[in-house]
Amino acid sequence: MSTTHSNASDVASMVETYTATRKASEEFAAPLAIEDYMLQAMDDVSPTKWHLAHVSWFFETFLLKPYLGGYKPIEERYEYLFNSYYNTVGPQYHRPSRGLISRPTVAEVYAYRKHVDDNMLALFEQASPSLAAEIAPLVRLGVNHEQQHQELMVTDLKYNLAINPFKPAYHDREIPRGVATPPLGWVEHPGGIVQTGWEGDSFAFDHESPRHDTLLHPHRIASRLVTNGEYLAFIADGGYERYELWLSQGWAKLNGEGWKAPLYWEQIDGAWWHYTLSGMQKVDEHAPVVHVSYFEADAFAGWAGKRLPSEDEWEHHAEKLAIEGNFADDRLFHPVPLDTGSGLPAGELSQMYGDVWEWTGSAFLPYHGFTPLEGGPGEYNGKFMMSQMVLRGRIRSHTPESHALNLPQLLLPA
Amino acid sequence: MSTTHSNASDVASMVETYTATRKASEEFAAPLAIEDYMLQAMDDVSPTKWHLAHVSWFFETFLLKPYLGGYKPIEERYEYLFNSYYNTVGPQYHRPSRGLISRPTVAEVYAYRKHVDDNMLALFEQASPSLAAEIAPLVRLGVNHEQQHQELMVTDLKYNLAINPFKPAYHDREIPRGVATPPLGWVEHPGGIVQTGWEGDSFAFDHESPRHDTLLHPHRIASRLVTNGEYLAFIADGGYERYELWLSQGWAKLNGEGWKAPLYWEQIDGAWWHYTLSGMQKVDEHAPVVHVSYFEADAFAGWAGKRLPSEDEWEHHAEKLAIEGNFADDRLFHPVPLDTGSGLPAGELSQMYGDVWEWTGSAFLPYHGFTPLEGGPGEYNGKFMMSQMVLRGRIRSHTPESHALNLPQLLLPA
Amino acid sequence: MSTTHSNASDVASMVETYTATRKASEEFAAPLAIEDYMLQAMDDVSPTKWHLAHVSWFFETFLLKPYLGGYKPIEERYEYLFNSYYNTVGPQYHRPSRGLISRPTVAEVYAYRKHVDDNMLALFEQASPSLAAEIAPLVRLGVNHEQQHQELMVTDLKYNLAINPFKPAYHDREIPRGVATPPLGWVEHPGGIVQTGWEGDSFAFDHESPRHDTLLHPHRIASRLVTNGEYLAFIADGGYERYELWLSQGWAKLNGEGWKAPLYWEQIDGAWWHYTLSGMQKVDEHAPVVHVSYFEADAFAGWAGKRLPSEDEWEHHAEKLAIEGNFADDRLFHPVPLDTGSGLPAGELSQMYGDVWEWTGSAFLPYHGFTPLEGGPGEYNGKFMMSQMVLRGRIRSHTPESHALNLPQLLLPA
Amino acid sequence: MSTTHSNASDVASMVETYTATRKASEEFAAPLAIEDYMLQAMDDVSPTKWHLAHVSWFFETFLLKPYLGGYKPIEERYEYLFNSYYNTVGPQYHRPSRGLISRPTVAEVYAYRKHVDDNMLALFEQASPSLAAEIAPLVRLGVNHEQQHQELMVTDLKYNLAINPFKPAYHDREIPRGVATPPLGWVEHPGGIVQTGWEGDSFAFDHESPRHDTLLHPHRIASRLVTNGEYLAFIADGGYERYELWLSQGWAKLNGEGWKAPLYWEQIDGAWWHYTLSGMQKVDEHAPVVHVSYFEADAFAGWAGKRLPSEDEWEHHAEKLAIEGNFADDRLFHPVPLDTGSGLPAGELSQMYGDVWEWTGSAFLPYHGFTPLEGGPGEYNGKFMMSQMVLRGRIRSHTPESHALNLPQLLLPA
Repeated sequence: MSTTHSNASDVASMVETYTATRKASEEFAAPLAIEDYMLQAMDDVSPTKWHLAHVSWFFETFLLKPYLGGYKPIEERYEYLFNSYYNTVGPQYHRPSRGLISRPTVAEVYAYRKHVDDNMLALFEQASPSLAAEIAPLVRLGVNHEQQHQELMVTDLKYNLAINPFKPAYHDREIPRGVATPPLGWVEHPGGIVQTGWEGDSFAFDHESPRHDTLLHPHRIASRLVTNGEYLAFIADGGYERYELWLSQGWAKLNGEGWKAPLYWEQIDGAWWHYTLSGMQKVDEHAPVVHVSYFEADAFAGWAGKRLPSEDEWEHHAEKLAIEGNFADDRLFHPVPLDTGSGLPAGELSQMYGDVWEWTGSAFLPYHGFTPLEGGPGEYNGKFMMSQMVLRGRIRSHTPESHALNLPQLLLPA
Repeated sequence: MSTTHSNASDVASMVETYTATRKASEEFAAPLAIEDYMLQAMDDVSPTKWHLAHVSWFFETFLLKPYLGGYKPIEERYEYLFNSYYNTVGPQYHRPSRGLISRPTVAEVYAYRKHVDDNMLALFEQASPSLAAEIAPLVRLGVNHEQQHQELMVTDLKYNLAINPFKPAYHDREIPRGVATPPLGWVEHPGGIVQTGWEGDSFAFDHESPRHDTLLHPHRIASRLVTNGEYLAFIADGGYERYELWLSQGWAKLNGEGWKAPLYWEQIDGAWWHYTLSGMQKVDEHAPVVHVSYFEADAFAGWAGKRLPSEDEWEHHAEKLAIEGNFADDRLFHPVPLDTGSGLPAGELSQMYGDVWEWTGSAFLPYHGFTPLEGGPGEYNGKFMMSQMVLRGRIRSHTPESHALNLPQLLLPA
Repeated sequence: MSTTHSNASDVASMVETYTATRKASEEFAAPLAIEDYMLQAMDDVSPTKWHLAHVSWFFETFLLKPYLGGYKPIEERYEYLFNSYYNTVGPQYHRPSRGLISRPTVAEVYAYRKHVDDNMLALFEQASPSLAAEIAPLVRLGVNHEQQHQELMVTDLKYNLAINPFKPAYHDREIPRGVATPPLGWVEHPGGIVQTGWEGDSFAFDHESPRHDTLLHPHRIASRLVTNGEYLAFIADGGYERYELWLSQGWAKLNGEGWKAPLYWEQIDGAWWHYTLSGMQKVDEHAPVVHVSYFEADAFAGWAGKRLPSEDEWEHHAEKLAIEGNFADDRLFHPVPLDTGSGLPAGELSQMYGDVWEWTGSAFLPYHGFTPLEGGPGEYNGKFMMSQMVLRGRIRSHTPESHALNLPQLLLPA
Repeated sequence: MSTTHSNASDVASMVETYTATRKASEEFAAPLAIEDYMLQAMDDVSPTKWHLAHVSWFFETFLLKPYLGGYKPIEERYEYLFNSYYNTVGPQYHRPSRGLISRPTVAEVYAYRKHVDDNMLALFEQASPSLAAEIAPLVRLGVNHEQQHQELMVTDLKYNLAINPFKPAYHDREIPRGVATPPLGWVEHPGGIVQTGWEGDSFAFDHESPRHDTLLHPHRIASRLVTNGEYLAFIADGGYERYELWLSQGWAKLNGEGWKAPLYWEQIDGAWWHYTLSGMQKVDEHAPVVHVSYFEADAFAGWAGKRLPSEDEWEHHAEKLAIEGNFADDRLFHPVPLDTGSGLPAGELSQMYGDVWEWTGSAFLPYHGFTPLEGGPGEYNGKFMMSQMVLRGRIRSHTPESHALNLPQLLLPA
């Protein structure tokens, strides 16, 4: 977020963005059975019900309580129950037990959402121009926070449904299958001092700023994502059996958990299938590989004689491209083969936005000159800058063992 | 065990008992929100949804599949999903993850129940006299199995709701409060060889037989249960702080988990409250103490200069009494003070049935001459005869750290 | 229990027993390298160095400090460091870390022993007849305590050396090999009320008393121990692969730890070997099987169509026999085949003393009328009466998963 | 290491360096009791005995076996037992159990060392000039490897002795105490492209190369290390109680393990003491703070309104300084106050070498252009480039929770 002075004080626009975002969360949840809202299949995922409540808590805590005179919470104890990790606000309910709370029920959580929405609209309505200007950055942060949780709802729900031996589908959307893999090209860069980091009027999280000088080494970057077909060649070549390809920590993980392929992959009668939100599907060799951990991405890159891009390299190339792609808004929730995707050319640096998040070879650390926000929102990002690698697309980082929705780009050292 | 007195080959009576038992399970669940059915707040409890399905699985597996020609399961994979621990039947879904399964939904589980019921009724209807005679013991076992799970549904649900910081009540039944604690009397017994273990026409689990000789030492047994008031005196006298009162394993548990009082007790503004299925209630000094582990029961008895009764002593005294009391059928789900209870005299050996289960000082081991049932039902009890102490009332045993619905009787060594 | 028959108030005899016992401990340790004294290969075993110090601590704590005027400890902090589990004495050093203490060194522990011995002899020397009478039971307890730790030193050292991939031998004593297995006979007993439990002048631990009535059912008991040959038949018949033979808790353990044979057994080029204190040896089919857990003993007995004896049965038969056998005093530290053993007849109830400890089917619980000792020694046994099964020979009990030096006797139900 | 072509082929110099290094390891161990050699007080430290054997294994594996014709190992199985983590060489003995191996004894390990030394000298003696040139880089790597383990022997021994409640001293060297803390100055740097990474004839580990361009931002760096006095002010200001100063992972660690001060610190009667290899000492407010984790260093820097230097900044400043300081060779094994140290001026950038290792704010990742060595030595460093932060002085990195011998430098953002 931060210090944007855009037309965010335009109340009508604020209302529109707020309303659209809130609606999108509920639309995502609409196909779920009540029982699905409760699932927390491991400590690091959260129930859909919790996400829907927590994003409301964010608006209640940072907007309604400080700025709406006479605001009355629907339930005082939600302050504790739906706080994720904000010590500034107070103690938090034990995270791994979020799935053990049946009350409030789903209906009560929707009532909570409505209560927050009604009051937010009241706040917008009565806001003077100066108050509107003051709350605009927080509203924008809240909206982006909810959008971030929409992505988490997708990945968490996928994990929660996938552990069910029945492998239930979330929806019946058909995932397009590829016909041919476009050839791999390389985009050259001569290196030199460039600037990365966000600056401008539109929204960014605090840790995406400030814009600062950085030195790129001469390099070239692959024109498209690694495909399942290419990843299958890695597997076939003993990729999961050769210690010399792996970081020591990754090799221990692989052996401890018996990794043989990306998360959600399963071999059935000799063929590879994987779980998707459209149910079990045969792996499409033309589609981008997805759900690989950093360890797998790094091992694959080393096997291919390449390396992962640095975050600076990724960002420098990406910021020249139009922000178009197969996003969560499209509700497919699965990457598409390049030759079927959204009319994008199979040319230079395709699919950098949308489809997947992409591992970089950089650690998640503060940009030069980083300053966290004041107060509660200052706990958003800075305190997590340790033991994570940068994953780009939408968010900046993840623990290296995480099999998030992602895949590596290939880079040849110049 | 217990009260099924029908002529087992009498089909009409079989239908009646079957139908009544199945209905009772669903009546228990009726007040629940869908979300409540999903809860598994620790490995040793199961979701209500799972209980409702598993008891149906029992009839399907041991009656419908072997005896109903042309029987078609509603879903083949339930054989695996709802098997608790019967290796004879096949592999079992991972027990601690029962709460992570959203599908089948609650509605689908009720459809499963209906499918099993319809087919069971068809089986009863078309059974020849000889088939009726053959299936009667299995039906009786299935009915008692479901009744046992009804008790588990109560204790499991209580645990599952109690961990919710909102402490939601299951129902609004009012628990009677005592006015005075009846004086403690002692029933003497001269000792000698007696017989214990079940024999007869009515139902008993395999491990409750055979009837066999046992030697009682001269002893006397308390006429009523220990009250909360008496237990509060133990707490006030440093009961939870004096290592010399505790078994070594219990003392380690107490320290490791910070025990200060029975499970579900909480001190609020200096007064003791406890969670009940009617919500948080002030502890009633005249009511029997409940939810103490074996370690607590044993420490209390030692502190009082007494010991727990042996299983043989308990059974010998109990089998002379009428089977009357405050049972789960009464749906109060909480013990009542003796002076308010069901019109029972406060005299000799009150409340041995109903209200609570009672710890004995005996280990859970086979009765002399014990033979398990054949096939799958043979896994019901025998293989668990290790590391448990005998708890009487309805079931025979539990792990010593379990805070089940129970309390100690006091016995003076003669 | 055992064989100290001196008149306890006879000081000369006290000195003699004390001195002999203290010497025996040091003779056991004599072949060890300094490094061996330090080993603690799992939480439940203790380093030899610790045992040697702790038994001295026992005399210091319960004899020297209370009874020897002006006694000065060689090091005050040993009171804490070498306390095993006596809360009465004070806090204890963390048990699983006993192997992490290099100082005091082995030499310093021997100096500690000498300091205690010198002072104990001074105490004996200056004891008035009445003091001698007062301390005699405590000296006797201390001597028996040290003898018990001598057995623990053997089993702990065996475990500690066995985990070394070099499988170092403790000594080069040759273990006699059998030529033929004597036929199995059965000793009949008509049942009835008998007395068990110790009573008399010689020493016994508190939990071995009092003598009390008990009811034996008619039974017969095997005339000799189960052999390795018989146990190999159990293995060959799928003993470790058939769930129906095992207690549920044992089956989980077997699968969790990959049991395929008794502890210390290893299959090398198709033949079974096992680690002994004389190094790796080929398993002798004529020798008693040893190092089986309760779960294995119970599974074997069930497979053989028998059961384990109850403690009362074992004790009733054993107490009629002369206390002769292959004891730790003989320093072989391994059971011998019956046809090579000490000239004992292969007849009725052989090898009940010595060679091995024997699992019974009884839980470790207080004998009727049991009263613990006063003060510190009262923590010796009573507080461990939970979750253990009775193992006879020398000590009364062990956890069921322990692979102690033991084996089952077979009993046919009459 | 890498591709150095210095006069390393000079055999006499090789012999001299080799001999001196081998001798230094044994001199370090000389004051130890045999028992001390065995200690492994947590998984991440190794027994001194193991270190002494493993460094010999390195020479045996990478020099003697490939290059000395007819070489006979003293014990074949040491190849497995003393392999640390080289999968190229073969499987490895379980690391956390290194302290559970009593045999080979300490004397046998010294015999192993002598066997390796005798054969290494034979190899040197018979080496042709071309062989000498070929082995020179490996000898140099082996020597530096052994020196690295000498530092580990110091830190591991310190941890191993410190957990002993008797807090035994390793030696009786007196640690100089400071009189006054020199004022803190700041060295300015204008930023710009500089080169870091090693290049030249002298030795470096592979991950310290190649030399490459890097961009420094304008900054200033503190002229001296943070003192205990300054760190005490942080503690007094609630440093260990204020969540907002800590990374989330560090705050969890602090709470989980109850951190209140640096490792080895203890408050006795209101004053702070800490364990040193000279025994318990009062904390000297003028001496550099030491044994802080990355989390503590980072929290301190944030509290002081500063940040930690980047690795590039540290290296750029350090490489201009003479390599002088209070090194392990000096055998004090503790940092000294600046005003008492080795005659160094209290001026610009003091104590960057010696005394302590210093945390930087950089993650441990490959330098641009990094290529690991071929074969076994290639496993030395590259595979550990994950989840570690860079710690400079001698080694490049450590896990952030490690309380190594280190402390932060302060840097003001320009």
